[in-house]
Amino acid sequence: MRISSYITSDGTASYGVVHAGQLHDAGAALRGKYPDLRAVLAAGALSEVATAAQSGEAIALSDVTLVSPVPNPDKIICIGLNYMTHIKETGRDKPAKPSIFTRYPSSIVGHDVPMIRPRASDWFDFEGELAVIIGTRGRDISEADAMDHVAGYSCFNDGSVRDYQRHTSQFWAGKNFVDSGAMGPWLVTVDEMTDPAAQTMETRLNGQVVQSTPISDLAFSIPELIAYLSIVTELLPGDIIATGTPSGVGLFRDPKLFMADGDLIEVEISGIGILSNPIRDQS
Amino acid sequence: MRISSYITSDGTASYGVVHAGQLHDAGAALRGKYPDLRAVLAAGALSEVATAAQSGEAIALSDVTLVSPVPNPDKIICIGLNYMTHIKETGRDKPAKPSIFTRYPSSIVGHDVPMIRPRASDWFDFEGELAVIIGTRGRDISEADAMDHVAGYSCFNDGSVRDYQRHTSQFWAGKNFVDSGAMGPWLVTVDEMTDPAAQTMETRLNGQVVQSTPISDLAFSIPELIAYLSIVTELLPGDIIATGTPSGVGLFRDPKLFMADGDLIEVEISGIGILSNPIRDQS
Repeated sequence: MRISSYITSDGTASYGVVHAGQLHDAGAALRGKYPDLRAVLAAGALSEVATAAQSGEAIALSDVTLVSPVPNPDKIICIGLNYMTHIKETGRDKPAKPSIFTRYPSSIVGHDVPMIRPRASDWFDFEGELAVIIGTRGRDISEADAMDHVAGYSCFNDGSVRDYQRHTSQFWAGKNFVDSGAMGPWLVTVDEMTDPAAQTMETRLNGQVVQSTPISDLAFSIPELIAYLSIVTELLPGDIIATGTPSGVGLFRDPKLFMADGDLIEVEISGIGILSNPIRDQS
Repeated sequence: MRISSYITSDGTASYGVVHAGQLHDAGAALRGKYPDLRAVLAAGALSEVATAAQSGEAIALSDVTLVSPVPNPDKIICIGLNYMTHIKETGRDKPAKPSIFTRYPSSIVGHDVPMIRPRASDWFDFEGELAVIIGTRGRDISEADAMDHVAGYSCFNDGSVRDYQRHTSQFWAGKNFVDSGAMGPWLVTVDEMTDPAAQTMETRLNGQVVQSTPISDLAFSIPELIAYLSIVTELLPGDIIATGTPSGVGLFRDPKLFMADGDLIEVEISGIGILSNPIRDQS
């Protein structure tokens, strides 16, 4: 099942199932119980979404504004260096532990919505990533149990303002500009994608392939990430883990390749689909 | 005015004004309009809290469980290296930009509530800090206007799990353990503390002074921090800025000085009061 979250033409926040290129609304029937997809996940109520969508209004995807599949997560946890190809291009060695930073939900837009290059910088870079969405809460989760806590997957663009990221040792300033990243177009549930490591990911800038990797090249696997993160914090339904980007980012190219107003950036993951975002300058 | 947030003996979340050592509840009268102090700040309704507290139930502080004055902020933004005395003890030079990381609200307890040393580590360290609470939203705020966006101040303990903090270059893992930090005991509004830089801060472990500084020693001032942060993100009412810790942390002592079950850690700031927390081992 593929579930999108969106704003309808009359401004209502809703969610529904995408099937054969069309949205089938579930929010109108379920919003009273579950105001958003995060609440659906917290209640373990994905099957109710499937049922409600069967009799829900059919809406063209072009008639809504998609937002991130989980627009209001408690946490967006990003893994900084998690493909050897990217670790090597930054000049680093394989780390012993996952390198972790956070993004605010206000830094993430949905599919087809512009990612904003801030006035403060023209070093605006792309990072295609696989996002893992947590379904079942837990702390001190073992690697063996970790996949039982996953609700699904999505495409993620960890858009990065590189000069701000380099202001200090901490990545925060480069990773949290308003509307500088993206997630979507939908959450693909685990029953539909049983082996994320068997997938491939490609990032394209204006149609040119700039990143390409098998997900199996992750330095820390999804179970390893969940086990480590949950030593520190309790993972909650709707929490996002952005699993890291492979080589090919614009910062380490010669010449550097950054995004500008009018560009189109796409992150495609097999088994999920394409997250596509135009780039616009901050007004 | 000093405003605390708390859980009453019957489990109700509320907030009220502290005067002469006693709580005067405002939440019972205002919760319908403003469910929590964050909502009060967003509505610019501090004067309503003052009025409601005048006829609100008087409650002994010992009859409630204090939580962080803003228990559910959108953001807790921490400044990593912001007193020259601490910068020097870490072996670093004065940074050109503020070093920023984040904490989750789930990592912060209220006054008198145990801070939890995790099973995973015995390198559990204290960091006394001044917390700034945002009252008025804004982005691209100038230094000249910055103080107009501040609602008040509180004491903050940026409790740190040092071995996890050092796992990678990113501080996340050491700064987000559940219940490992604290804030309180109340928010002191700006009308009562017009010059935070004129205050002094002291951290005590089991009564022994371990940190002592004038707030005026901040490397980046509160207006400088607000201006820089708001280039990146929109600051919202209730957002917390933990402004950094001075020298004296346990990690850089010889021998190292970490907190253990049964210890008592206190952060006192003149003009605010004392944030006191017992240390307990994770059960």
